[in-house]
Amino acid sequence: MAGERKYIYRFGNHALDGDASMSAELGGKGAGLAEMTLLGIPVPPGITISTGVCRFYLEHGAFPTDFEEELGASLAWLEDSVGRKFGDPRNPLLASVRSGAAISMPGMMDTILNVGLTRESIHGLAAQSGSLRFALDSYRRLLQMFGAVVLEVPKKEFDNVLETIRADEAALRDSELSEAGLQSVIEGFHQAIERCAQTSFPQTAVQQLSMAVHAVFKSWRNERAQYYRRLNGIPDDLGTAVTVQAMVFGNVDQRSGTGVGFTRNPSTGENSILGEYLANAQGEDIVAGTRTPMPISELAESMPEIYEELFAITGTLERHFRDVQDFEFTVEKGKLFLLQTRAAKRSALAAVRIAVEMVETGLISSSEAVARISPATINEILAPQLDFSQGVPEVLARGLPASPGAAVGRIALTAVAAAGALHGDPVILVSQETTADDIHGIVAAAGLLTACGGVTSHAAVVARGMGKCCITAAKDIFVDSDIGVLRIGEAVFHEGDWLSLDASSGRIFAGKVPLRAADGENAGLRSILRWAIDQSPLAVRANADTPEDASAARARDARGIGLCRTEHMFFALERLPHVRAMILARNTPERKRSLNELLPMQQQDFEGLFREMSSLPVTIRLLDPPLHEFLPPRKDVDAELLLARSENDAGAIQRAELFLERMQALSETNPMMGHRGCRLSITYPEILEMQVRAILQAALKVAAEGFVPLPEIMVPFVASAEEMQCLRRLIDEAANEVFANHGESIDYSIGTMIELPRAAVCAGAIVEHVSFVSFGTNDLTQMTFGFSRDDAGKYIDAYLNQGILKSDPFATIDRGGVGGLMELAIRQMRARKPEIKIGVCGEHGGDPASIEFFVSIGVDYVSCSPARLPVAQLAMAQTQPLRRIAVPGQEHVSQC
Amino acid sequence: MAGERKYIYRFGNHALDGDASMSAELGGKGAGLAEMTLLGIPVPPGITISTGVCRFYLEHGAFPTDFEEELGASLAWLEDSVGRKFGDPRNPLLASVRSGAAISMPGMMDTILNVGLTRESIHGLAAQSGSLRFALDSYRRLLQMFGAVVLEVPKKEFDNVLETIRADEAALRDSELSEAGLQSVIEGFHQAIERCAQTSFPQTAVQQLSMAVHAVFKSWRNERAQYYRRLNGIPDDLGTAVTVQAMVFGNVDQRSGTGVGFTRNPSTGENSILGEYLANAQGEDIVAGTRTPMPISELAESMPEIYEELFAITGTLERHFRDVQDFEFTVEKGKLFLLQTRAAKRSALAAVRIAVEMVETGLISSSEAVARISPATINEILAPQLDFSQGVPEVLARGLPASPGAAVGRIALTAVAAAGALHGDPVILVSQETTADDIHGIVAAAGLLTACGGVTSHAAVVARGMGKCCITAAKDIFVDSDIGVLRIGEAVFHEGDWLSLDASSGRIFAGKVPLRAADGENAGLRSILRWAIDQSPLAVRANADTPEDASAARARDARGIGLCRTEHMFFALERLPHVRAMILARNTPERKRSLNELLPMQQQDFEGLFREMSSLPVTIRLLDPPLHEFLPPRKDVDAELLLARSENDAGAIQRAELFLERMQALSETNPMMGHRGCRLSITYPEILEMQVRAILQAALKVAAEGFVPLPEIMVPFVASAEEMQCLRRLIDEAANEVFANHGESIDYSIGTMIELPRAAVCAGAIVEHVSFVSFGTNDLTQMTFGFSRDDAGKYIDAYLNQGILKSDPFATIDRGGVGGLMELAIRQMRARKPEIKIGVCGEHGGDPASIEFFVSIGVDYVSCSPARLPVAQLAMAQTQPLRRIAVPGQEHVSQC
Repeated sequence: MAGERKYIYRFGNHALDGDASMSAELGGKGAGLAEMTLLGIPVPPGITISTGVCRFYLEHGAFPTDFEEELGASLAWLEDSVGRKFGDPRNPLLASVRSGAAISMPGMMDTILNVGLTRESIHGLAAQSGSLRFALDSYRRLLQMFGAVVLEVPKKEFDNVLETIRADEAALRDSELSEAGLQSVIEGFHQAIERCAQTSFPQTAVQQLSMAVHAVFKSWRNERAQYYRRLNGIPDDLGTAVTVQAMVFGNVDQRSGTGVGFTRNPSTGENSILGEYLANAQGEDIVAGTRTPMPISELAESMPEIYEELFAITGTLERHFRDVQDFEFTVEKGKLFLLQTRAAKRSALAAVRIAVEMVETGLISSSEAVARISPATINEILAPQLDFSQGVPEVLARGLPASPGAAVGRIALTAVAAAGALHGDPVILVSQETTADDIHGIVAAAGLLTACGGVTSHAAVVARGMGKCCITAAKDIFVDSDIGVLRIGEAVFHEGDWLSLDASSGRIFAGKVPLRAADGENAGLRSILRWAIDQSPLAVRANADTPEDASAARARDARGIGLCRTEHMFFALERLPHVRAMILARNTPERKRSLNELLPMQQQDFEGLFREMSSLPVTIRLLDPPLHEFLPPRKDVDAELLLARSENDAGAIQRAELFLERMQALSETNPMMGHRGCRLSITYPEILEMQVRAILQAALKVAAEGFVPLPEIMVPFVASAEEMQCLRRLIDEAANEVFANHGESIDYSIGTMIELPRAAVCAGAIVEHVSFVSFGTNDLTQMTFGFSRDDAGKYIDAYLNQGILKSDPFATIDRGGVGGLMELAIRQMRARKPEIKIGVCGEHGGDPASIEFFVSIGVDYVSCSPARLPVAQLAMAQTQPLRRIAVPGQEHVSQC
Repeated sequence: MAGERKYIYRFGNHALDGDASMSAELGGKGAGLAEMTLLGIPVPPGITISTGVCRFYLEHGAFPTDFEEELGASLAWLEDSVGRKFGDPRNPLLASVRSGAAISMPGMMDTILNVGLTRESIHGLAAQSGSLRFALDSYRRLLQMFGAVVLEVPKKEFDNVLETIRADEAALRDSELSEAGLQSVIEGFHQAIERCAQTSFPQTAVQQLSMAVHAVFKSWRNERAQYYRRLNGIPDDLGTAVTVQAMVFGNVDQRSGTGVGFTRNPSTGENSILGEYLANAQGEDIVAGTRTPMPISELAESMPEIYEELFAITGTLERHFRDVQDFEFTVEKGKLFLLQTRAAKRSALAAVRIAVEMVETGLISSSEAVARISPATINEILAPQLDFSQGVPEVLARGLPASPGAAVGRIALTAVAAAGALHGDPVILVSQETTADDIHGIVAAAGLLTACGGVTSHAAVVARGMGKCCITAAKDIFVDSDIGVLRIGEAVFHEGDWLSLDASSGRIFAGKVPLRAADGENAGLRSILRWAIDQSPLAVRANADTPEDASAARARDARGIGLCRTEHMFFALERLPHVRAMILARNTPERKRSLNELLPMQQQDFEGLFREMSSLPVTIRLLDPPLHEFLPPRKDVDAELLLARSENDAGAIQRAELFLERMQALSETNPMMGHRGCRLSITYPEILEMQVRAILQAALKVAAEGFVPLPEIMVPFVASAEEMQCLRRLIDEAANEVFANHGESIDYSIGTMIELPRAAVCAGAIVEHVSFVSFGTNDLTQMTFGFSRDDAGKYIDAYLNQGILKSDPFATIDRGGVGGLMELAIRQMRARKPEIKIGVCGEHGGDPASIEFFVSIGVDYVSCSPARLPVAQLAMAQTQPLRRIAVPGQEHVSQC
């Protein structure tokens, strides 16, 4: 063995050079085998050529000079261990050759079995095993795997040979072939290799081994592996290890066999071994599926000692690795060998149950349990899913997965149709896009599907807020609501037809696909989330507009309301007339009259919110959307006018004309950048005054009832310190008037949203006038990119496909641009007012990757829709609360 | 006189303590009098109490302890100089008391004459002057001025007394009053003062003097003066001086008189004295206008020695101060005294002529001449103006002055009507707002008036580009084009009625107001501009879309084209069908066919531009607006479909339906943040390819003709480095294809616009892929503020009125927010690529205040519409080219 540098590590047969901590050098497989050796578990002995050799090989195109020597010594040790020799015609040593990177990677060369067998040694193997048929079949398998993987002979070449000879022998499967038939197959394979690879199959064991190792190393660079690494951010220079392990044979007789299993059920998490065993077979026979394996549990009867030994070993493995294991084993002539063990992939449901049960038995800590659950996957538990266990039907069209879950229902093409559906079945609302006016239809629908919009279009935001599933930007659908027809590609649907949405993936299916219900009450998940909240460095609040939302949020342990959108209250049917009268008012007194009608209704909403959220902060945003959003669609008013004219109703004509004139005056080319947010408070201060009165009167009232309201009044769409200064004065004046009228006062705080680039740039000045700020990352993303969220679906796909955008900036925060502005703002604010409370209340508040970033730049809390609370709480618990210190004058944009 | 500190400065009678350089201490008047003394010009002797005394007084509420002593000594000197004594009943010394801040300031106390006269000394003055009437009248004047200014008696109290007694005596004017009448007036004034001021008129000269000085000092703090200082950014702690000057009397006999004049004509700039003289009068008699003064020139005949002396003196003054003077003088018994001299206010026309003629005679340098012309005023010369010399008619309504100038024409309410008007008279196009589709109507119109929009709405931008006058955001107008009616407030107009626009002030008048033509060929202005360009630290380019624009720009010495908007070429009538076919194309080959039709037309445009701009850079921006802007209005297509259906024309129905479907697919909620700019190039690279081909083929062609094309290809609306990298590759590929086809190549450069906040934040990364950038400050302002320029007019007024915005950010760059982003971008770019060429091509490129800022943050050039070139060239010449060094890591936002 070479001096300082070690290329090769041994395992098995009481020898051991490595352990599980060395997976960087040994790869996952090699490290697992080393660790099993350490634990005294029977593994066939073998050697692992380290990733360092691969790195050297990839860089220099050759092995290190002293490698061959070390390899020779290692193989000699292996031969001694097993008592056989590579290439010995009478007593050949056969080995498996496998790749093993530190991170499991599809696309890399996997396994070649029986390496070392030659024409010459077939009979030696026959003598060893007592079966010529077994020896011939082993050689056939080697030719097939080596030919395909190392020599790149198309697989179908071998299939053709097999099919021909099976047909000749009328054999249904390979195992029914006669020895003569196998001989013919072997000749056919040899010819196929010579024809396709322009070379003959190597007839020395050393040559086979060498070629196999080369092939593994080269496969590190193949296209699929490179693509996978790029996609998953795996460095290109890790390299792979190669494990050469003495073969044990599960296909040597009926006391032999092979199996795979999990220490616990990976679908349900149930704590019992689950797996399959196939007698007289090698591993690939299970995969091929031509014979039906038996459940591992039946081994308890057919081979009780083996079963007990296996049960004991896998128990050891699970306890040792402190996680569910996915293992492979072989029984050779009644002797058990473990071939591989690794952490098992599992469903979200299983992950939760396993983690919780392992905490209960003291195997892992609660914080480890929290760390093991991927936030992105728990929607599988929380939202209903289409059940594809019977197969996936044809996908009709695709859109953006805007709000997770699934829905199966009858098509409605307008909000009115959705809200008025009499069939009693669930409804899917399908439209070009939705507007605030469609809210009643959305409430009535089980799921939404829109042709336009993106992941933060109106439909998406509202759906997520309500926990309904939603697919947007389904470009291949076309809605003609006038004639009640929905076209999806070539297919035509009518209102009332069934449709199924898989909003977690954005797929649309015709008809009724079976639905698996949500498990919102999952006890395990509740434990995980309770631990997560206890461990969280920062608070997660909920966006909630109604007492019902607030109640749901509190039930999910929201630490307050981070955003209450008061405009959603304005859309209630009984209020719209007053809202519209207020908008159509020609002067301030008229407007005040309508506002006075709205005041008690708003106050009632706030009372409900404060009661639900007693002792927790409730951030109430003042009216935000442009007023024209509250008006009916233009064509409705046009129709009304037409009707009034045809009936010669002078009063109605005048009303409609006034309406039209006002609509025209209010209409905007770009409403997103329009007369909205605090601009409404500047031009119509009486709206702000009404809202402040409603908030504080509500607070006073519920305080008298014994609740503890903590109102935070938030001003939206602020662009400058001057605006905020002016509005702070108006709010304080309105508050003082309320307090004077009631003869008592209550604490409240005033804050603003940072959702315009100018507010971010000037945050240092704005912060002087507020005691909290909340980043509105939706609008900040819109303005920073100049992406209208309602329209961006049209081109954002092209951006993602071409790699110009790495992810949808409305789903995951754009760290370089939008994030750069946020950092800039936070640095200024902390410098001027270190105690300022900073939150995030955009859609990104529910996105794990975004939460990680927000915590890293020093926000104090995030707020998301109640439906996303569990995801956010879990993601928050997994962040590193490494608050950076704000250093004024430091270069601020580092992500571009 | 006190030792180290000097409170009071003497002038006149060969004594002199100060000079013109001391205006900070002496105020403007005091410094002028000191300087005239120095020049040996006859001025009545006097003393100036320094601004330092005022500052002390305002701080301590009293004079410095040693001030009284110095004042006594100074007054004694003054008495000696004149040979009269304050308060001497037989030989009284009278004085004028005037305020005099360093900066002339309306609202401050101005002048009190005849201070020192008492009931007792009236007869002494009568004896001195030989006229009791004169003495009585002088006392009457003192009571009136002192009463109103020092004692704050309402002016009408004195007017009432005068009117009563004039009526008693049947006198038409004060000068016709008898001595007895004057006595009655004096008694009446005394009573009025006692009644209103609760005090009697002080009867010692010292008391009068002291009270007058106090009054001057206090007036520094009055509301109007404070307001004026705030408005003009004058520091509050400068203080005012007080000048006490021996009276000379122009109203003592017929050999006396008083006059005011200018050394050159302040309206036309003609080099001859212009002014008025009134015999036997004091200064306020000229102002009162009750007697008609004679032109100064007539003095040459009536008092030739006086005229000659005055002519010589004013010549000396003009040469000495090197500027046109505005002077006041008095003749007392045939002896000339100058009372004041200062730089004269003048019209833009006069300013230009005077400056140029002073350069020609060597009085000032050409750079001084350039510095003396205010850029904002030269529009008075360049654009036609309404002629208000016959009075200003009633203002019908007001809007924003979006493009300067004036227009008088007949109303057209649609672009079609404007373009098709047969009456041959000029047309004013009036509409709610204009769109790209209205371009032919705008071309045909003399002026534009829109109800909506702001100073950078479509109408405003296009109008300024064409040098047409435009008023936008005229909220009181309502256009009903369907019935051809325009309502402005209560007034109703029809198409064809006359309307007059004063777009320089935003005022709208009914009917035909006389129009004064523009003087675009003004030779003086051409000289000024030539000097300005020679002195400019940085280049001014023009925005030009057509060869005609380019020709106009070159005639005005543009240093290149900074922005050619290729979409304006797409709107030409003969091209729109191809453009629309391109947009409606269902696939790439179809789209390419239409683009091939457009290619030769685009190429021809570019050839024209390159020929006009040979040897100067031409920046061509790739297609920018969303495609739906090129489609006809929705209602037109609806109408077409209706017609087709009524005619049962299946082909037409299908065409219209296809059109509608495509329109629906293209329509956007917020087109400003839509599928536009480089997003079109990402999704339809064939459009970019066509444009690049057209640009470079044109360049090759004109180069072969001997011209020197310098094409710069500019990519709009870039948000990320990844976009720019991708597009740079596409452009280079298209270019290489052109060069390969032609067998020759030509230099071109690639740049981008910085008009999205994200581009500013990430400019350091973007700049790696370009060789120039141009700030699109219009869009950058829109996105940074979240102000849609087409809609912001609705609330921006309220922001300006409430002082939340100091100026319209679309007219003058917002230094704190938008400017902060620009600085941030420039610092990053210069750090990564110091040689990067940085321009500005938004509307702000023509605004003097913005240009000053751009130069201060280190841009290399600005570009503006050809009509604004002179203003921009002049403003650029007046900036300080103090380029700040980019220091990475430096705190970057300093303006908030």
